[in-house]
Amino acid sequence: MPGSIDPDRLCIILVSTRNPLNIGAAARAMCNFGFHHLRLVQPYDPAFREARSAVGASSVLTDAKAFSALAEAVADCTLVVGTTAIRHRQLQHPLHLLKDGAPLILQELAAPPDHPSRVAILFGSEKVGLSNEDLSHCHWLMHIPTGDEQKSMNLGQAVAVCLYELARNSTAPFPITDKPRTSAEEVERLTAVLIETLRSSNYMDAQSAGSKEEDIRRMLRRMQLSSEDVTTWLGMLRQILWRLGAKS
Amino acid sequence: MPGSIDPDRLCIILVSTRNPLNIGAAARAMCNFGFHHLRLVQPYDPAFREARSAVGASSVLTDAKAFSALAEAVADCTLVVGTTAIRHRQLQHPLHLLKDGAPLILQELAAPPDHPSRVAILFGSEKVGLSNEDLSHCHWLMHIPTGDEQKSMNLGQAVAVCLYELARNSTAPFPITDKPRTSAEEVERLTAVLIETLRSSNYMDAQSAGSKEEDIRRMLRRMQLSSEDVTTWLGMLRQILWRLGAKS
Repeated sequence: MPGSIDPDRLCIILVSTRNPLNIGAAARAMCNFGFHHLRLVQPYDPAFREARSAVGASSVLTDAKAFSALAEAVADCTLVVGTTAIRHRQLQHPLHLLKDGAPLILQELAAPPDHPSRVAILFGSEKVGLSNEDLSHCHWLMHIPTGDEQKSMNLGQAVAVCLYELARNSTAPFPITDKPRTSAEEVERLTAVLIETLRSSNYMDAQSAGSKEEDIRRMLRRMQLSSEDVTTWLGMLRQILWRLGAKS
Repeated sequence: MPGSIDPDRLCIILVSTRNPLNIGAAARAMCNFGFHHLRLVQPYDPAFREARSAVGASSVLTDAKAFSALAEAVADCTLVVGTTAIRHRQLQHPLHLLKDGAPLILQELAAPPDHPSRVAILFGSEKVGLSNEDLSHCHWLMHIPTGDEQKSMNLGQAVAVCLYELARNSTAPFPITDKPRTSAEEVERLTAVLIETLRSSNYMDAQSAGSKEEDIRRMLRRMQLSSEDVTTWLGMLRQILWRLGAKS
């Protein structure tokens, strides 16, 4: 493990995983490379139970936490990275090769102690990967370059390769900024208030709401707002909302 | 896959593998990274049969060759590399970290056509890895650095990580996005509309306007908005402005 980064600031999040062997394999790779925090979003319940109760299940597995929604699972995270095999999908996020994304993750993990950071790396289900809704919670996406013959990697192997790349370069670069990190919870709060404002102003109607909400969630994450900027935006939008309401 | 090397010169050799899932996982990782030649030495026979007959078995699996002795399996190879988690063993071979060994393997794979090279990477059984006898067939050994908690990797994951490292430095980075660049003019137009909205909602009054305007101008530039995002924001703000106005 890199000396200067704190592995406890990284969590691996598996979304809608069905196969208990894959949950076990992800946990094993985490043990191999010294990471401890595993979170599961809507895991197929028998799979999660089976993986946890397996003989010799590691503490990574027994301590794994389950969430019913991705927003809750990433709430305390300051950087949310999605993984993708890029198939059948128009990507609307910045996309990095794993080897280029890893230094950015290490940088975030190396933030000074008084500005606690937390990074989540998301892996989607075996069949379909991450949904567009899942991706809308991500700051950017990361891709393991694979050949055309078989683009899609086995889940446990993809987790292993990502964690290997993180551990590969044992020295983390210096963090660029020492600004307070912005948690996904804060950005999601801003997302909600912006959407409320857009509804209140009739920019969004009930029909188009779903996909527009995803667009807006993605856009706010692309902006990499600081904690202060989020506060400013919240102040502006609340005032606008109040005026829109006061006048209705 | 690397452009200048010939992936058909590499073979992955699994020695005494017992679990059919691991044989399948190794084959899948090979497909992912564009390698084709899988050899098995004394595989547990039912495992090999089961892996080959699995639904959707790749050509890597169906073309895999079995050998009764390692010496036969490596006979045509010019470089034989063993993998090890280094436990309970006095190593009597040169040992490289994976990231340092990979370039040596790529070099061998890139030998000119009139000097045909063939490289074998050996993976031992799930329980005990490669025996000393197996290691004696190797030119040198390679090691994936893992933590003390859990040194030994899952076989399929170890194969995936090794092949990822081989493919890692030979893939071209993604082209820098050719999204339209955002002109200062566009951002300034957005700034003006946002300020107008904030005035219209009484967030800003005449007294405080000056310094707040600067804060907002700076903030919008920190966001590094794409041209498309500027358009989206303009649409949202104009609708809000219209509603604020319509109601006054």
